[in-house]
Amino acid sequence: MGAVPRTLELFYDVLSPYSWLGFEVLCRYKNIWNINLQLRPTLIAGIMKDSGNKPPALLPRKAQYLRNDIRLLGQHVQVPMQFPKDFFSVILEKGSLSAMRFLTAVNMEHPEMLEKVSRELWMRVWSRDEDISEPQSILAAAEKAGMSTEQAQGLLEEISTPKVKNKLKETTEAACKYGAFGLPVTVAHLDGQTHMLFGSDRMELLAHLLGEKWMGPVPPAINAKL
Amino acid sequence: MGAVPRTLELFYDVLSPYSWLGFEVLCRYKNIWNINLQLRPTLIAGIMKDSGNKPPALLPRKAQYLRNDIRLLGQHVQVPMQFPKDFFSVILEKGSLSAMRFLTAVNMEHPEMLEKVSRELWMRVWSRDEDISEPQSILAAAEKAGMSTEQAQGLLEEISTPKVKNKLKETTEAACKYGAFGLPVTVAHLDGQTHMLFGSDRMELLAHLLGEKWMGPVPPAINAKL
Repeated sequence: MGAVPRTLELFYDVLSPYSWLGFEVLCRYKNIWNINLQLRPTLIAGIMKDSGNKPPALLPRKAQYLRNDIRLLGQHVQVPMQFPKDFFSVILEKGSLSAMRFLTAVNMEHPEMLEKVSRELWMRVWSRDEDISEPQSILAAAEKAGMSTEQAQGLLEEISTPKVKNKLKETTEAACKYGAFGLPVTVAHLDGQTHMLFGSDRMELLAHLLGEKWMGPVPPAINAKL
Repeated sequence: MGAVPRTLELFYDVLSPYSWLGFEVLCRYKNIWNINLQLRPTLIAGIMKDSGNKPPALLPRKAQYLRNDIRLLGQHVQVPMQFPKDFFSVILEKGSLSAMRFLTAVNMEHPEMLEKVSRELWMRVWSRDEDISEPQSILAAAEKAGMSTEQAQGLLEEISTPKVKNKLKETTEAACKYGAFGLPVTVAHLDGQTHMLFGSDRMELLAHLLGEKWMGPVPPAINAKL
């Protein structure tokens, strides 16, 4: 296609399993659809606070449903998701502040590495039930994604600088301005219109808005590679 | 296909716009997939009370999102949805008790009319912003669906009987036992396994579980008729 690619912004946090699903689906389609995908590391705790929303898992019946939903969607979308054993400690106590500041630094200094490092952090917390809050955990993910120890160490030192902290705050505020009350949020910029789509289950609607073809969560070209 | 059709139960309330989307999509697929679709009129207020969940529109940012989401999904799914002007009065004050008792009576006495009468009630409340709580509103929907005045009047008289009241309670309790915290809920019975899917956005996952083909919310055979 000769047309200018449409910009899609994906606001995500690695603490959010539905963000992982949305992320993988859009990463698969970014070379199939005529889009320019911009990954935006965001702090989900900031979105919850600003919107007044509560994590769904605080309602027991939703928590029970989430476990099953994540298992079924993981199989369908072909993302190896597993619920962490101590879900509440991982999500509510440990959180993702350092991890998301690290991804913010990656995005500022080495944007070409952002997709891979994000995925390795999800692999830790949402697949292998490993920590993502300690410095060595973040370094391990960065190295697994292909960064050198020195490079990863350098970025890790930057996460306590105002530059990185403010950038993560700005991105989180931008998501809130689009109306976010959770993550993932996909913002599609189309012919002067802006559409904010919440969750990982609006991708077929997104295709419809883009005038592109929806071929399921695992499009055939990708399926051959998996 | 010679195989025995799989039973799907759709728990819904006409107060719920996402129930309407799920209902139309499953009604379109019921003659395409090898399924036996059972429509289950349910009281959403009962589900909210039992699960401790709150209507999403009580959070201002979710309410704002819902309006847009319903508009976009209505276009995509080809269901003529319009937000009622006084949303809170319609949803939280007037509610759907009489309408859902009426649909329960329809299901007990004239199950062949349930799909059409349900659709006409949705057309009133979620398309034309008309009342569904007064007796004459319910009668108008039933007549539009093809019932005679006498037939509709007879069913309306039954909605205050213990038989009908208890049946609606039982159905609502059955949804709660499956883990419902909102509507619609689709329960798929497959090879001795039971899957409960919440919302109107798990239909592609449902196709995957059934081993059937997902052809979008408006499958081609239906598209030709619309």
